[in-house]
Amino acid sequence: MSEDRLWGDLTGLAEFVESGLPGWTRRVFSAPYQASRRFIQTLMEEAGLIAEQDSAGNLIGRLPGADSTLPAIVIGSHTDTVTGGGRFDGMVGVAAAVEVARQLLGSPLRHPLWVVDFLGEEPNEFGLSCLGSRAVTGHLGSDHLQLRDGSGRTLGEALTAAGCRPADLHTARWRPGSVHAYLELHIEQGRLLEQAGLELGVVTAIVGIARAQIDITGSADHAGTTPMDDRHDALAAAAEVVLGVDLLGRSGEVEHGVATTGRILIQPNAANVVPGLAQLVVEMRSTSEAWLRRSSAALEEMVAQVAKDRSVEASLTWISSEPPVSCDPRVRQLLGRAVEQMGRTPMELESGASHDAAHVARVAPIGMLFVPSRGGRSHCPEEWTDPSQVADGARALLRATIEADAAEL
Amino acid sequence: MSEDRLWGDLTGLAEFVESGLPGWTRRVFSAPYQASRRFIQTLMEEAGLIAEQDSAGNLIGRLPGADSTLPAIVIGSHTDTVTGGGRFDGMVGVAAAVEVARQLLGSPLRHPLWVVDFLGEEPNEFGLSCLGSRAVTGHLGSDHLQLRDGSGRTLGEALTAAGCRPADLHTARWRPGSVHAYLELHIEQGRLLEQAGLELGVVTAIVGIARAQIDITGSADHAGTTPMDDRHDALAAAAEVVLGVDLLGRSGEVEHGVATTGRILIQPNAANVVPGLAQLVVEMRSTSEAWLRRSSAALEEMVAQVAKDRSVEASLTWISSEPPVSCDPRVRQLLGRAVEQMGRTPMELESGASHDAAHVARVAPIGMLFVPSRGGRSHCPEEWTDPSQVADGARALLRATIEADAAEL
Repeated sequence: MSEDRLWGDLTGLAEFVESGLPGWTRRVFSAPYQASRRFIQTLMEEAGLIAEQDSAGNLIGRLPGADSTLPAIVIGSHTDTVTGGGRFDGMVGVAAAVEVARQLLGSPLRHPLWVVDFLGEEPNEFGLSCLGSRAVTGHLGSDHLQLRDGSGRTLGEALTAAGCRPADLHTARWRPGSVHAYLELHIEQGRLLEQAGLELGVVTAIVGIARAQIDITGSADHAGTTPMDDRHDALAAAAEVVLGVDLLGRSGEVEHGVATTGRILIQPNAANVVPGLAQLVVEMRSTSEAWLRRSSAALEEMVAQVAKDRSVEASLTWISSEPPVSCDPRVRQLLGRAVEQMGRTPMELESGASHDAAHVARVAPIGMLFVPSRGGRSHCPEEWTDPSQVADGARALLRATIEADAAEL
Repeated sequence: MSEDRLWGDLTGLAEFVESGLPGWTRRVFSAPYQASRRFIQTLMEEAGLIAEQDSAGNLIGRLPGADSTLPAIVIGSHTDTVTGGGRFDGMVGVAAAVEVARQLLGSPLRHPLWVVDFLGEEPNEFGLSCLGSRAVTGHLGSDHLQLRDGSGRTLGEALTAAGCRPADLHTARWRPGSVHAYLELHIEQGRLLEQAGLELGVVTAIVGIARAQIDITGSADHAGTTPMDDRHDALAAAAEVVLGVDLLGRSGEVEHGVATTGRILIQPNAANVVPGLAQLVVEMRSTSEAWLRRSSAALEEMVAQVAKDRSVEASLTWISSEPPVSCDPRVRQLLGRAVEQMGRTPMELESGASHDAAHVARVAPIGMLFVPSRGGRSHCPEEWTDPSQVADGARALLRATIEADAAEL
C-alpha cells in the first residue's frame, strides 16, 4: 500500500477542473469530467484491470478471480463533484479502490474484483443524482432520459454525447446474485469521527431523504402604502415555515432526523415591495422511515396552517423521496473486523448523506467505510482528509475486500 | 379641462418604453426616457410654456404671472419608472400639470407658474432616488456625483451624457422664498381611497424611511451530516429576523408605522446545504420620527439577540434614512377646499411612499393630491387609474393652483 502513490492519484485527479468555477468543480458531462475519466481508466489499466465504460457511463475495471463462476466483489465510488466542490468526496473511494486492485494483482481473490467509478453521483442540472448506480439496478428509466437541463437538452442526449448508449441501458444492469458485496469508501462529510478522535467509521445505515418544494403566493404590494393587516406577505409566511422546519428537525428522541430549508427565492425581492412569491426547498433526512413519514405529514400540516394564518396560498410538492437503507449486517461486521485488524477502533455511525451504495443495495449486500472530514466540511473547496487518513481508508478497504472474499454473504 | 386630451398625453407618454423589459419600463438616463422628455417638452411648449432643462436635468415649463416679483407656484412630478413599472405613477402629475397650464394660458395667475418634470425620482442603479428634487434644494452634492452604477459609470457621467451640467448644479437651486407653493398630484399607490370609495386624497404627511441591510454569517454545512444542535443556520436566524420585523410593524398605537423585509438572498442556496450566509434588506416607514427612532433601536437589539440565540454572526448597516415630512397645513387646507369646490369629500391620508415633494419641502410649502390606484397596485404593469379619475385629479390641481395664487402662504 503506497500512501504516496494514492495521494498522487488524488492530486492528479484534482487537476481536472472546470475553469471559471469555484473550488475543484468537475460536474458530470463537463469536458474536464470526460478527460478525468480517461485518466482514471489509465490508472485502472496500469493497475492491471480490464477497464471499460458500460452503456450507462460507469467506468468499470475488472480483475478476474480464481473462480470465474463466483459473483464479483465491487469496490469504488464516484469522481464527479458539485459546483464549488472539493478534492476528496467520492474521489477517495475510487482512488483507494484502484490502489486495492494494485495490491491484489499478484494474489488474486476467489471472486472477481470490479473497481467502479459510477457516473454522476452528485445532483446535476437534470435534477437526478446517482445516474450510474441507478442504472446498474435497472432504475434509470426512459422517463429519466427525458429530463431536461436549463438549456433544454435531455439527459438522454447528454448521455449519448458522453459516449454512453442510453438505448442499451439494460446491458449495464447487475443481475441479482452477480455481486457478492459492494464496499464503498467515502469521506464522512460530517464531524463525528473528528469529534470522537477516531480514524475509521463503519456505516450502519444511509438516511432516507424526503425533499419538498413549497410555493407560497401572497401579494406584491407597496411596502410603504400597504397597512400591516392588509398584507399577504409571502416572505413572512416562508419565515414561519423555515422555523417550523427547524423545529421538526429537533423533534423526536430515539427516532430522529434532521430537517433543513436550504433554498429560498422570493419575488420581486425589492426593498420597497412586500414579497409576493416565495419558493422554499425543504428536506428531511433520517434512517427511520417512521420519523420521515411522521415529519412529512407534520410539514404538510404546518404549511397549510401557516398559509391560513398569513392569508397566503401555499402548495407543497414532494420532489424526491428516497427510503433509508440499512447496510448489510454481515458486511458491517467484516468492515469492523478489518478496522480492528489494523489496531483501530471502528466507529459505528449513520450516513447523513446519500451515496451510490444506497442504490446498489437493491441488488447486492452493501457496506460503507468513512474516513474523517476535517471540520466536517464537504462539497466545498475546504474539504480535506489527511494523506495518512486516506491511506488508512484504503488499507481498511483492502482488508475488508479480503475478508469479503472469504465470507459467505 | 379636456379629459380626452389629458388621457391622450398619458397614452402618448406610455409609448416610450425600454424594449425587452417588462411592463412600461422607462428608467432615468435610458434612451426612451430621453426621448419621452422631448415629448413632454413639446407638450409644454404647445401649452404656451417656455420650457427648458435646468443644469440638473429637471424639465421646467414657465408661464409668467401678472406680478413678476412674486415667487412661483410649482406643479408637477416625475416621468421615469421603475423596471417593470406602469403608466401612471408620477406621469399623472406631470400630464395634469401641463393640462392645468393650458387652462391658465388665457387668464394668467398673479404668480408665475412652473410646470416641473423632475429628473429620476425612482430608485436607480446609482442607489439614489429623487435626483432632480434633491438638486433644486441644493442636496445633490459632489459625493453623490461619484456614485457608480453596475458598469462603473459615475452619476456625474450619466448626468453629463443626458445633457445635464453637473458642474453647474448650483444654478438649479430654488432659493428659499422663490417658490410660493409646490403642489404635486400623484397616484395613491395604496388601497385607502378605493376602500373608502373616495376619488381625491389630501396628503397630511410623507413617511420617513429607515432602511437597513442585515448580514448574517453562519456555517454552510452538509444538511444531512450536521446534527441540528451543531448548526449555525443563517436562514433560520434570518427567518427569526423577518418575523421580528413583521412584529415591529404591528407595534405602536397612536404612533405607528410599517416594517418590511423585502429582500433576502442566501448562500449557497442549495437544497442539501445548511445556509451559511443570509442578507436581508429591512425597511421601516412612519410619519412619526419617534416611532422610527424607537423601532430602529428595537431592530438593532433584536438582530443582536437572534445572532446570540442562533450562534451566528450578524451585522446591521443603515443604508438610508429619510425623515418624515409634514405637508404645509395651509396648503393642505387649500387642497381640501379645492376638492370640496368640486362637490367631493377630500380624504386626508398619509403617503406611505416617498415623493419629490418630500425634498422640495426643504425650500417651499408643499402639498400633495392623490388619485386612486386600482387594487392599490403600483410599480407594476397592472397600475391603473381611470381616465375620469385622472381628469378629476387635474381639475382639483387646477382649482388648488388658483386657490394658492390667492393665498398668503
